Amino acid sequence: MLMTPGPVDLHPRVRKAMSRQVVSHRSSEFHSLVKSITENTRKIFQTEGDVFMLTSSGTLAVECALANIIEPGDKVLIPVYGVFGKRMSESAEQYGGRVVEINLEWNRGLTPEVLEEYLTENNDVKIVSLVHNETSTGTMVKEFWKISEIVKDHGKLFIVDAVSSLGGVPIQVDKLGIDICVTAAQKCLAGPPGISLVSVSGDAWKKISSKSSKTPSYIDLKKHRQFMEKLETPFTPAVNLMYGLDEALKIIVDKGIENWWRKHYECSRLLYNSLESLGLTIYPLEECRSITVASALPPNNIKPKDIVEGMEKNGITIAEGMDKLKDKIIRVACMGNVNRRKIEYFRDTLKKVMENIERHKDSTRKEQKL
Amino acid sequence: MLMTPGPVDLHPRVRKAMSRQVVSHRSSEFHSLVKSITENTRKIFQTEGDVFMLTSSGTLAVECALANIIEPGDKVLIPVYGVFGKRMSESAEQYGGRVVEINLEWNRGLTPEVLEEYLTENNDVKIVSLVHNETSTGTMVKEFWKISEIVKDHGKLFIVDAVSSLGGVPIQVDKLGIDICVTAAQKCLAGPPGISLVSVSGDAWKKISSKSSKTPSYIDLKKHRQFMEKLETPFTPAVNLMYGLDEALKIIVDKGIENWWRKHYECSRLLYNSLESLGLTIYPLEECRSITVASALPPNNIKPKDIVEGMEKNGITIAEGMDKLKDKIIRVACMGNVNRRKIEYFRDTLKKVMENIERHKDSTRKEQKL
Repeated sequence: MLMTPGPVDLHPRVRKAMSRQVVSHRSSEFHSLVKSITENTRKIFQTEGDVFMLTSSGTLAVECALANIIEPGDKVLIPVYGVFGKRMSESAEQYGGRVVEINLEWNRGLTPEVLEEYLTENNDVKIVSLVHNETSTGTMVKEFWKISEIVKDHGKLFIVDAVSSLGGVPIQVDKLGIDICVTAAQKCLAGPPGISLVSVSGDAWKKISSKSSKTPSYIDLKKHRQFMEKLETPFTPAVNLMYGLDEALKIIVDKGIENWWRKHYECSRLLYNSLESLGLTIYPLEECRSITVASALPPNNIKPKDIVEGMEKNGITIAEGMDKLKDKIIRVACMGNVNRRKIEYFRDTLKKVMENIERHKDSTRKEQKL
Repeated sequence: MLMTPGPVDLHPRVRKAMSRQVVSHRSSEFHSLVKSITENTRKIFQTEGDVFMLTSSGTLAVECALANIIEPGDKVLIPVYGVFGKRMSESAEQYGGRVVEINLEWNRGLTPEVLEEYLTENNDVKIVSLVHNETSTGTMVKEFWKISEIVKDHGKLFIVDAVSSLGGVPIQVDKLGIDICVTAAQKCLAGPPGISLVSVSGDAWKKISSKSSKTPSYIDLKKHRQFMEKLETPFTPAVNLMYGLDEALKIIVDKGIENWWRKHYECSRLLYNSLESLGLTIYPLEECRSITVASALPPNNIKPKDIVEGMEKNGITIAEGMDKLKDKIIRVACMGNVNRRKIEYFRDTLKKVMENIERHKDSTRKEQKL
């Protein structure tokens, strides 16, 4: 059972779909496939605008957003509260952005007050780019409507990395005025890894069209738009993964996106309760806890590594911390095909694994005394 | 039946493999998968060096080769004899290369004499980068060992786009001294679209390591090397496509790579004979014909479009020309799971389709006379 923060377990229907024979990406069957994916993706992004597919992980989708929007010299504001925010900042710089980072506590993330203050002081910022949900820390930007209101009130372009949250929580791209929103199939959409999705607003198109610097071919959104007019992609896409994604999106839309959000919310409450009931300390402040990935410190000097390995032996894959949270936390996903039964099974297994570790520590201690 | 120059029909074993449950890309199962793919890929590239996987089409793999090698200002020589050479040239420029193009006849491509002359006259060239097989024209660089000898004699770095030929014809990366060779799974390897492969030589590493300019994260080979040490990829890979590729490579290696090459060669001879026997004119000069994709002009003012549509109605997908060869040629792949039976079936169907078109033209002519 996969409970790493992506990829997530695939539904049998998704797996079966991927085994279909490949078709040419210039054929009418392919056009129907793109149409179906695009229509359902729009429902999940809650946008009437454009959504494009890249054959890549989410990392390239974030690079794509930045590379298309940033004109060398543009001042870009990036709040950093974990590994993925830092990665975004490095990418923005590489594509010529003059980056201003807001370095935040990793267990708290961005609050409306901090953003308001920064934007008031830094009038020359052109783009605000942020990670909505830090997969590395389990911290999520809450009061997201306030955040986007501030960005829009200040008249900035707004890029959102929602790789590990879109589909799991409501992110209404049009209503919030997000100019470029990116996600990847293998997280809350419960699709296969290898496809990322990028939405583009009208304001974003204005900037992209007026930009004089060139964007690398593979991620050039102007090229993608041109081919999307005939329901195609400019370069050979991962057709079999698209079959899988199409099926995964149908499952969500059939259930209803609101129900999909609600399921994530309810499962995450159960997950946090389970972790706390077993003596773990949740890493982020209560008001900043992610709905889609929980991170927690084990009790009594139990090593995260031992928990991860113990869980693996019992058939459940979870993750350790990254960067400065390495050897400090465990990370457990609450994404995609998650449900109460799975979380309960996770809790019971974790209990067993932690008891085993304690027992082993006790016997080692006794041996040392003898 | 897919006879477009990629993607190609997938073997049932490959399709079945893709429907396996996804695993974490930090797990031991994944490590075994990478090990298996890498070992077999080396046999096909004929290299003892590094081979990396990108989740992308071949286009990004070519960008990857250029972006990692080119230091802004480096003079890069690129022979252009079709759409993909032109694309390579644009990419090289975008990553800061001072590009010198050798513009060649599209039906001929590169010859050793031309290359020797250019390199003698342009001593300051640092990198020679070329498309081995032009998918857009059906023209292949023949006497490739001579070409590579010239590049090496002049002491240049050598980048080869072998996207549509590697696996179909012998390209011995180490013996030829190719510094970066790229291909994609969905052509002669008969794997699924969405994975590309990049080999890197010792000399290439020296250049990559000494380069002061930064390479975009997703395609940064230094990052890939660092993760490959633990049989991992730096970013979430398309695990299900890797299952498929692994199976596809096993099929080739089981049959023997020499047999796989021979099969391509024999099928291509049959394909060219079939096309000529039906009155089509092969587009490239005889000595420059590709083994993996045949391009030909239809006889008697039959439109390529009508042939492509007629074939499609009969269940065979082939392609039209691109760019200045649009409305001039048809393109038929001889890649991957191709065999005599398929080519014969293609020939019989093409005969029927062309007769139908002629019959329809005759009846239209008669109607016009009446």
